[in-house]
Amino acid sequence: MAKKVHGEESPSIREEVLRLLKKEKGRFVSGEEISAAMDISRTAVWKHIQALREEGYDIISLPRQGHRLLAVPDRLYPREIKEGLATAVIGRHYHYYPVVDSTNTVVRKLAAEGEEEGTVVAAEEQTGGRGRLGRSWFSPPGSGLWFSLLLRPALLPREVPRLTLVAGLATAKGIAKATGLEVRLKWPNDLYLNGRKLGGILTEMEAELDRVHFVVVGIGLNVNVGEEEWPPSLRGTAISLREACGREIPRVPLLQAILRELDDCYRRFLAGEFPALLQEWRQRAYLGCPVFITLGGEKRRVEAVDVDEEGLLLIRKEDGEISRVVAGDVELIQE
Amino acid sequence: MAKKVHGEESPSIREEVLRLLKKEKGRFVSGEEISAAMDISRTAVWKHIQALREEGYDIISLPRQGHRLLAVPDRLYPREIKEGLATAVIGRHYHYYPVVDSTNTVVRKLAAEGEEEGTVVAAEEQTGGRGRLGRSWFSPPGSGLWFSLLLRPALLPREVPRLTLVAGLATAKGIAKATGLEVRLKWPNDLYLNGRKLGGILTEMEAELDRVHFVVVGIGLNVNVGEEEWPPSLRGTAISLREACGREIPRVPLLQAILRELDDCYRRFLAGEFPALLQEWRQRAYLGCPVFITLGGEKRRVEAVDVDEEGLLLIRKEDGEISRVVAGDVELIQE
Repeated sequence: MAKKVHGEESPSIREEVLRLLKKEKGRFVSGEEISAAMDISRTAVWKHIQALREEGYDIISLPRQGHRLLAVPDRLYPREIKEGLATAVIGRHYHYYPVVDSTNTVVRKLAAEGEEEGTVVAAEEQTGGRGRLGRSWFSPPGSGLWFSLLLRPALLPREVPRLTLVAGLATAKGIAKATGLEVRLKWPNDLYLNGRKLGGILTEMEAELDRVHFVVVGIGLNVNVGEEEWPPSLRGTAISLREACGREIPRVPLLQAILRELDDCYRRFLAGEFPALLQEWRQRAYLGCPVFITLGGEKRRVEAVDVDEEGLLLIRKEDGEISRVVAGDVELIQE
Repeated sequence: MAKKVHGEESPSIREEVLRLLKKEKGRFVSGEEISAAMDISRTAVWKHIQALREEGYDIISLPRQGHRLLAVPDRLYPREIKEGLATAVIGRHYHYYPVVDSTNTVVRKLAAEGEEEGTVVAAEEQTGGRGRLGRSWFSPPGSGLWFSLLLRPALLPREVPRLTLVAGLATAKGIAKATGLEVRLKWPNDLYLNGRKLGGILTEMEAELDRVHFVVVGIGLNVNVGEEEWPPSLRGTAISLREACGREIPRVPLLQAILRELDDCYRRFLAGEFPALLQEWRQRAYLGCPVFITLGGEKRRVEAVDVDEEGLLLIRKEDGEISRVVAGDVELIQE
């Protein structure tokens, strides 16, 4: 039978070659075997192996023995993330970019084009990563998880802040599952470790007054950022998982764990379980402690008392008065 | 001096020709006079006159007498709307389309490209005009005002419903100025006349949790829709200004009047005068009367008591309990 010529550069055959190497991980697979299994020429096999190497797969090739997969790169490739992910909604579609302006911006564009709920966009690097209130978000290549989800919940705009809490909780749970580290949550959207900022959530929406069209939840998490990598403005206030546990954290299983928790928490949220999720959030949050809060340009010391069912922060001022905060900057007081 | 050749098809010369005809409205202006004033050939004058006629300007041309402007068409041309408009923000930029999908959609696209606050998009016809909650909005050609504004207020998402009220009030005031008709407001976003729906407002936004990126306020107003034009679903429940006052209403001065009131009300809103605007809104609203309200699929008879400072509706249920309504469908009870 003639070997396929047109299939030689086919990405789907490349996936098959990789699958075979993964299945046989630890042993050599001969070029002949691959060639026969895929019904392609030996030259085509070689080209696919080369292409996989360029993608970062560590493959050793020896004459008369063949090819052996030594290591899978820690890149957020769709094939790696989707392998064994098994989520129902979150990550149903997954788009990967080596570099983007901002994953939130990409998801917003996809949403405007009608993309369905659950789509995830992840990037190795963001050149215009954003935080709350137009602040920038440091997103160096390969050192973090910078990704965004598209959600289309049947919510009113004023109910959307709850999703930020749910996403923060899910991220914390995912980190715990993948690394054993227990991170803490700071209202409304930050993840902390050892009193330093580990990550944040940027929730954006498009809505009419009584209906949300879509919500974009962007998650930025410092995973393997090295101490020397931080820009001066973040040194001493930011932290990465690697710094916290003294070792490189593989990002692929971490992202998978977070996506699974997001899938689970979002399903529970839609099923009306926000009160229970909020209770879990509270257990991990900085509550019952003094914080600085900046409201309308004025910074004051208050007690962060609780978060209510709408996702608003309850603070106790020094005169004992309790008030609800819709938006404000909270700063931990390190004592 | 040689006549300009390249300028013959210039739209800016066309504007000059029109301005001259308007200035001399009621008398004939000779081709020679126009030709000399504009420094263009007699043939060019003729072409411009023809082009203006195609735009709907009624110009009579007689040999040896010249050209005389009899009537300006009632189209929402930028030159007609901007003439004497004198607003500070609203209508600063004005885009006109004979037909669009939806003016809100056009403004949202402009906003995403960085268009500044105050831009207005108006169309003679919308093929995909939208109302609240994804409902369609009947927007036949030339019979209404279908337009949208771009605003960039420093608001939280939960404060945006106030803008719907402000826009409704401004529209009612503009209609009163231009026609003498006093329309009534129905929470959250409708304009009524004689117990029938005259218009509506569709407010959309793009926001993060504590900052609005932009707000699009779309206004649809039935101006000269004829009784026979209504689709069966709207017959008996919708009304146009023409039906109400038995004569054709010129749309250009009407739109100008509304834009001026929007400009004024928005300026007052930004200056912190929402309480006073809300008071004006209340005076024109259906409050203190029984209505049907549909909440979570259930329709019940309640009293619409008031609207609070957040723009939420206060209702009194039959058992006397007062509650706040964030989103719901209110139906007037015609008794």
